[in-house]
This record gives sequence, C-alpha cells and structure tokens, in this order.
Amino acid sequence: MSRPRPPLVDCDIHNELAPGSLRPYLPRRWREYDETYGNRGDGGSSYPKGAPRAARTDAWPPSGLPPGGDLEFMREQLLDAYDIRYGILNCLSKANRQQNPEYAAALCRAVNEWQVEEWLEKEPRLRAGISVPYEEPALAAEEIDRAAAHPGFVQVLLLVRTDEPLGRRRYWPIYEAAVRNGLPVGVHFGGGRANPLTGSGWPSFYIEDHTAMAQAFQTQLVSLVVEGVFERFPTLKVVLIEGGFGWVPSLMWRLDKHWARLRDEVPHLSRRPSEYVRDHIWFTTQPIEEPPDPRQLLTVFDNMGGGDDKGTDKILFSTDYPHWDFDDPDRAIRAKLEPEARARIFGGNAMALYGLDR
Amino acid sequence: MSRPRPPLVDCDIHNELAPGSLRPYLPRRWREYDETYGNRGDGGSSYPKGAPRAARTDAWPPSGLPPGGDLEFMREQLLDAYDIRYGILNCLSKANRQQNPEYAAALCRAVNEWQVEEWLEKEPRLRAGISVPYEEPALAAEEIDRAAAHPGFVQVLLLVRTDEPLGRRRYWPIYEAAVRNGLPVGVHFGGGRANPLTGSGWPSFYIEDHTAMAQAFQTQLVSLVVEGVFERFPTLKVVLIEGGFGWVPSLMWRLDKHWARLRDEVPHLSRRPSEYVRDHIWFTTQPIEEPPDPRQLLTVFDNMGGGDDKGTDKILFSTDYPHWDFDDPDRAIRAKLEPEARARIFGGNAMALYGLDR
Repeated sequence: MSRPRPPLVDCDIHNELAPGSLRPYLPRRWREYDETYGNRGDGGSSYPKGAPRAARTDAWPPSGLPPGGDLEFMREQLLDAYDIRYGILNCLSKANRQQNPEYAAALCRAVNEWQVEEWLEKEPRLRAGISVPYEEPALAAEEIDRAAAHPGFVQVLLLVRTDEPLGRRRYWPIYEAAVRNGLPVGVHFGGGRANPLTGSGWPSFYIEDHTAMAQAFQTQLVSLVVEGVFERFPTLKVVLIEGGFGWVPSLMWRLDKHWARLRDEVPHLSRRPSEYVRDHIWFTTQPIEEPPDPRQLLTVFDNMGGGDDKGTDKILFSTDYPHWDFDDPDRAIRAKLEPEARARIFGGNAMALYGLDR
Repeated sequence: MSRPRPPLVDCDIHNELAPGSLRPYLPRRWREYDETYGNRGDGGSSYPKGAPRAARTDAWPPSGLPPGGDLEFMREQLLDAYDIRYGILNCLSKANRQQNPEYAAALCRAVNEWQVEEWLEKEPRLRAGISVPYEEPALAAEEIDRAAAHPGFVQVLLLVRTDEPLGRRRYWPIYEAAVRNGLPVGVHFGGGRANPLTGSGWPSFYIEDHTAMAQAFQTQLVSLVVEGVFERFPTLKVVLIEGGFGWVPSLMWRLDKHWARLRDEVPHLSRRPSEYVRDHIWFTTQPIEEPPDPRQLLTVFDNMGGGDDKGTDKILFSTDYPHWDFDDPDRAIRAKLEPEARARIFGGNAMALYGLDR
C-alpha cells in the first residue's frame, strides 16, 4: 500500500439503498403507490442469494445499513484504504425497469435526489450515474435534463439487459439528452425483463448467468455501432461497465469483416465498425478476464488498439465494491504494463472521460 | 493453386435440398402431412434473402438445382478446384426443428437417407453429419443409432440456437447416443425457435444477426462445460461450426476466474472449466475473425492453448461452401503459421477427429 502511484479512480462502486431510503424523496402519490403496489418489474433474486445484495461478507457496516449503504464505512473500507482519488457510484435498484412508467420515473428521481443528499453533497471524492427509466426514453431524457444540473452526476446509467438492443431508435432520446448535457452513457451489468438471458434460453447456474452477461454487452456494442448511433450523435461516449473486454478484439474483426461485404445493408455507416468502437466506447475492468499467463492480457490490449499504443486508452479500472467479486486495486492486472499505460487505466482515462479534475 | 501442400479437409460444406428432394424418402403418412401442413417450425427468411439460400452468386449450378444441390458442380467448383481430400457435409434444413416431433423425426430420417443415396454413396471424399430432431432427444438418439451404421456419417449435427442451453439434461440422450456410436457432436450456426437472438432482444440488421450468432456459441460452450456434460460423457467431442473462436480465450479466463470462487455451485466439476474446453471442444474457422494485422491472429491461437503448442490443435478449417461468406482455402488465415500448425488446421486435426483416413 505504501508504494507511490498515480491517482486511482474507481469507476464502479455501488451505493446501496436501505429499506425506506427513498421514502423522504418520493412524492405522496408515489409513496402511496409504493406502499400499495410496489415493485412489479423484475423476477428472480439478486446473486448470489447467500450473500445478500451480492456483497462481500466483510462489507456489512457495523451501522446495520446494507453493504454499500454506509458512506462512513465505504470511506474506511474503500476510499481511504486504497487512496482513491475519485469513485463513480452506479446505484443499482429496481427503479429503472418498473412496468409502470411514471412510477419508474418517480423512483429514479428519488434515487437521484437521495444520491445528491446522502452521497455527492457529503463526499467530494464521489461522483454518480443518473438513474433513469430507460425503457421510457422520453421520461429518461427529462430526468437527465433535471439531474444533470448537479455537477456530481457524471454519466447516465443504464443496465445492459434492455428490452431491445440499445441502438434502436426508441432509445435515441436518451443519447440526445446525454450529449446535450455533456455526459457519457454508462451501461452496467444487469437488468432484464423481457428476454431470456441467452439466445438459446435460460441457463441453469449463476456462473452461467455471470458469464453470459458479457453476451449482452456484445449485443449492445454491435447494436450501437450498426444502427448508426455514433453517426447521429458524434460526441456520444459510452462506457460498458462490468462486461469485460477480452471479447472486444475478435468482435471488431468479425464486424469489420461482415461490414466489408454487407455495407449496403447499413449505408448510414461512413466508417468501419471498429473505428466507432475505438472512438466512442470505454470499458471498465472488473471482472477482469485475468489469463493464466499475465502476459496474455497484454496481447488483448494490443489487439484492442489500432496501433499507436491506443490499446489501453479506453480501459477504466473498477473494483465493483462492495460486491463479492471485487477486484482489489493492489492485485488486479498482474501483467507488466508500461507505467504510462498503468496510469491511464488506473486513473488517467477516467479523469479525462469524466472531467474529474475540472 | 499449383503449390504443393498437405491434405486439405473442408469441415463445413452445405449440400442443399431441392424442392421435392425428400419426397421419395418420406413415408406416405408424412408425405401427405408435408403437402397439407408443411413447415410450421421456423419464422423469418434465410439470409440474405436477395441471394436465396445464402448462396454465392456464382454457386448456382447450370443444372437448375440450388446452390449446393448438384454434386457434379460441387466437385468442379469446390472439391476438385481446391484439391480437397475430404469434405464434411452439414445439411441445413428445417427438418430438425419442427413443432410436430414425429414429423421432425421423419424429415430428419429422410434427409439422412437422401444424403446416403445422393451424396455419400456417390462421392468418396464426402462425409456427413446426421440430421436429428434435437428438441426431442429420445427421437434424435433413435435416429443416431439408425444412421450411424453408415460409415459416411461422421458426426451428429445440431444447430446452435436451441430452445434451452445444450448442457441441460434434456439433451443428454443425444450425447449418450453420439458417444455410443463414436461420433462427435457438431453444433452449427443457425436454428432458433423459442427465444430472441440476444438477451437484449431482437436486433434490426442481418449484420447483427450474423455477429450475434457467436453469442449463442458462447452460451453452448459454457452450458456444456458447466452442466458437467464432459464429466458424464468423458469421451464426448463437440465441434462448434461457424461460430468463430476469437472469443474463446477471454471466455475461458472469465469462466476459470468465476469458477475459482463459485465452485461450490457446480460441485460436479472436477477440473477448471478451461480444461474441459481444451480437451473436448473443436472450432471450425469460417467466418474467421481476420484481424487487420495478421499477426494478431497468432496471439489468439497462443491464447487458445495451455502452452505446448496446443493452441491450434482444435481448429478445423472450413469454407462454408456454397454460402456467400465462403472462406477461400487459398486466402484464409493470412498469418504466418508454422508449417505444422498450418497442416493441422487445414487437415490434420479433422483427419484425426473424424477418423477420415481409417
């Protein structure tokens, strides 16, 4: 811990709602709705059920609040312990995928107001993603425009298992609002409502769920590129959070190969698919696909880039605190990186992307 | 074309049914059903519709038969032209996923009898996969036991978009029958009946379908490994056909990483997930994810292996003849491979796997 190092930025921290956290932030109409009807939007328990809220067993604060729910304990266990310069909160809740659209919007707004009061105003090292009812993009855009006024919000937060692929036109109002407010769009592990997890149905095990989630990220990357979202919104930046990135090189190769022969199907694209990926899409590290030989990871970074040492300029370190599969900043990425590349991954890329030192 | 080279084996050729091809092979009961009710099992057209049956525009035989439907023309355009020692036929039809199980079984049997009469008995360089009604595994096992008596059948043929992930118990009778008959199980691009193509819904474009199909292969690899299929059937060999392989290394890393922490969920696994992949799963090349710098492909092969030059021993060359995205044996794999590795990929691995020179 004592070795000097460049500023560390953790791009995926989860602040957790406790029972009743949102009550003060919900208008009476929706507080009553919440009490009478409540959650109807989501099936299945969070994983692993044996460790509620997917938490590390040592992450329960003495206060009795849930893991990730106690700022003081988060400071001690994460921000201070690892000397983290900035941390990006991605609050996961069921607010953003309720079947009742206005209830979803009210819950998201409450989540965001709670984040301002309880987190952003209290801890200058923290920034947060704006929770939005993303299946109702017009309502999501309204919330982005409202919440973005607070400088602590540095991205729009979606979950990766949407009802339709994210490139489709129904989601464009979200990108329009993000760009209008100068915010990247973060797409985090999780979600799901309409579709089985894979194109071949429901897997049996959690280990399969956790692994197959990377497929949903592949879907979204391809859809955003192929639908021409980055042609329509040339300043849009997208962050894929907790989906890995080892699959990115071969996916770019496959896409470019198909595009070379199928470009008449997608005449709205003016560039090779991989160019949009390289310019517009960032990837957080956790759960990093750590190979048996650390040097193999360097080949992945090399294959990510288009030359000129660009293979690491879209990689953002993240811990996923307080979840069970936390990547420790002192142990993650065993490969021998050049010091500049390590500094970019562990902080520099995030500082630039989110404008953190501004 | 004149340079000397080791034996070439094409591991993915499509022989195509013409209208009426199956009539002589269907019992009267099912011939009548076919005429009255016909196909009810599949939605959507094959891709791309503008080139019917996904064919190369130069692949239509002068005989008027469909592309891939004329053995003489296939000899001329593929087997002789490229001096192919052996070719594996994977006949794609809607036989294997009809909603009426016995109709599906009758169609599959007819497809297999047609393959024997019209292809295997006429051309000694060809081998074929057994078409089976794979969503009804008991019927599929019966057909495997029946058809495997002909030495021209060298694998069981499934399609990758099954109703459930292939590791689930419902499919085990297929593996039992394959192992009993000493046959690998080939899983080919395509299929689909129950589920949207991705966990985030239906994509808009064919280029997305074609790219997302690789996700279904990821699902099946994970499911077969994690459900313990290779523990239960230690001699089972699986060939993933037309799904690429650039995604395999990072998927093995991710799986191994999760397994190290989650192995209590899958106590039936006695080894690391990547070890099952390395020992039991083969991959055909087409559509090979050709990187901009050919040397990048070598890093993929390196990352596939567990050391000891094993990174290419499960790779099987394939053309996908006569489909539009045919990989030309004289041009595919631009990387500078060691001669032994090239010989393995282009023929040796397939000769050993399918016992072709026996």
